[in-house]
Amino acid sequence: MGTSNIEALVFDVFGTVVDWRSSIASEAQKVLTKHGADLDWNAFADNWRKGYAPAMDRVRTGEIPWHNLDDLHRMLLDDLLEDYGVTGIGESDIYRLNQSWHRLTPWPDSVEGLQILKSHFVISTLSNGNFSMLTNMAKFSGLPWDCIISAELAGHYKPDQITYQTACSLLSLPPDKVMMVAAHTGDLEAAKQVGMKTAYVHRPLEFGPNRKITMPDPSQFDVTAQNFLGLATSLQC
Amino acid sequence: MGTSNIEALVFDVFGTVVDWRSSIASEAQKVLTKHGADLDWNAFADNWRKGYAPAMDRVRTGEIPWHNLDDLHRMLLDDLLEDYGVTGIGESDIYRLNQSWHRLTPWPDSVEGLQILKSHFVISTLSNGNFSMLTNMAKFSGLPWDCIISAELAGHYKPDQITYQTACSLLSLPPDKVMMVAAHTGDLEAAKQVGMKTAYVHRPLEFGPNRKITMPDPSQFDVTAQNFLGLATSLQC
Repeated sequence: MGTSNIEALVFDVFGTVVDWRSSIASEAQKVLTKHGADLDWNAFADNWRKGYAPAMDRVRTGEIPWHNLDDLHRMLLDDLLEDYGVTGIGESDIYRLNQSWHRLTPWPDSVEGLQILKSHFVISTLSNGNFSMLTNMAKFSGLPWDCIISAELAGHYKPDQITYQTACSLLSLPPDKVMMVAAHTGDLEAAKQVGMKTAYVHRPLEFGPNRKITMPDPSQFDVTAQNFLGLATSLQC
Repeated sequence: MGTSNIEALVFDVFGTVVDWRSSIASEAQKVLTKHGADLDWNAFADNWRKGYAPAMDRVRTGEIPWHNLDDLHRMLLDDLLEDYGVTGIGESDIYRLNQSWHRLTPWPDSVEGLQILKSHFVISTLSNGNFSMLTNMAKFSGLPWDCIISAELAGHYKPDQITYQTACSLLSLPPDKVMMVAAHTGDLEAAKQVGMKTAYVHRPLEFGPNRKITMPDPSQFDVTAQNFLGLATSLQC
């Protein structure tokens, strides 16, 4: 499999490590219910997330200058509240709701899996989330990262190649000693392009029970696993 | 004291968190003795460290382009071995010796103190050491950082103001909610200039038993402490 020389694992975070959908639905319900809103909270989370890729693409194409993910989330949230006709929310509650992306709940295997992997490898985030978001989330959820690497450190969002290259450079490792771990094939294909190793981890509930997510062919990536414990086994931890 | 609104502590590392002198003396002895060298190992460590500030100043003044600290250490080491007349060392041993800056031993109170502080604040490095050096050192020594912030992320060495400002910006905090912790008054004075809070921690043995280091006047910084446990007490942890 060619994974024996790996020294560091870098992880996509949203969907791969944490269940953003349930967390955001629950936080939105907490904040907005007291303002009289009665929405489909999962759909609210989905709609907020739906703006994520297009907003980053506006940065990636140069349409707008660099904004970190907190800023992009806030722009999307302001539009979303308007679309839903939810009004009269004070700044402190809007801020609190936007910050709910700093408080996402890990999948059941994430913390245990990361602890096992940490005893064999350097483990880091490699996420489009901003640096403080990832730092606060780790503290909130007990994610035992050795360090935090964010697209913010490259000034470019994944899947831009420079983002992956910046991670390897900060770790002082050639790309073939660094494995990208993600539940999204596009992220892994981009990592492969710069010479990194790749591990697909299946997260069938990321978008809720109604969206079917198919496992990729096992030949597509260096490792294909059901969760982080399976990843640890595949890497002989 | 005005320290009640602090949310993050950022730490100088060399001398403040770890005892570089004993660690480097011991590692140099291990690597070079087998090549027949018989030196004053503490003096060797001192001489290597002596090149640190001038080498960074060459970057800071623009005389040479950005080099991370591993690179600067290696340039200094090559010169030092030549000055000492130590020859015939293979590349792998020179590399190993240079990497000894990734394996420095904490002061006796460092890990316990950081663990206490971590339960109240975000704790991070803010060091001129490069990102991988600080990450590897944390793993080697069990330093429980929430995140790693390095001068490398700013592309500027302390005491350039941009380095401190970059740290606050990555943490998404205004400077007055971030406290710089260091055993060096120059570092703290620079942090104060950008509006950060400051804590001096006394490390009388950083340069060995023969160099006297005087405590600054307590009015000079927000906190003055004998070690990290004292710092935790001062911050009401």
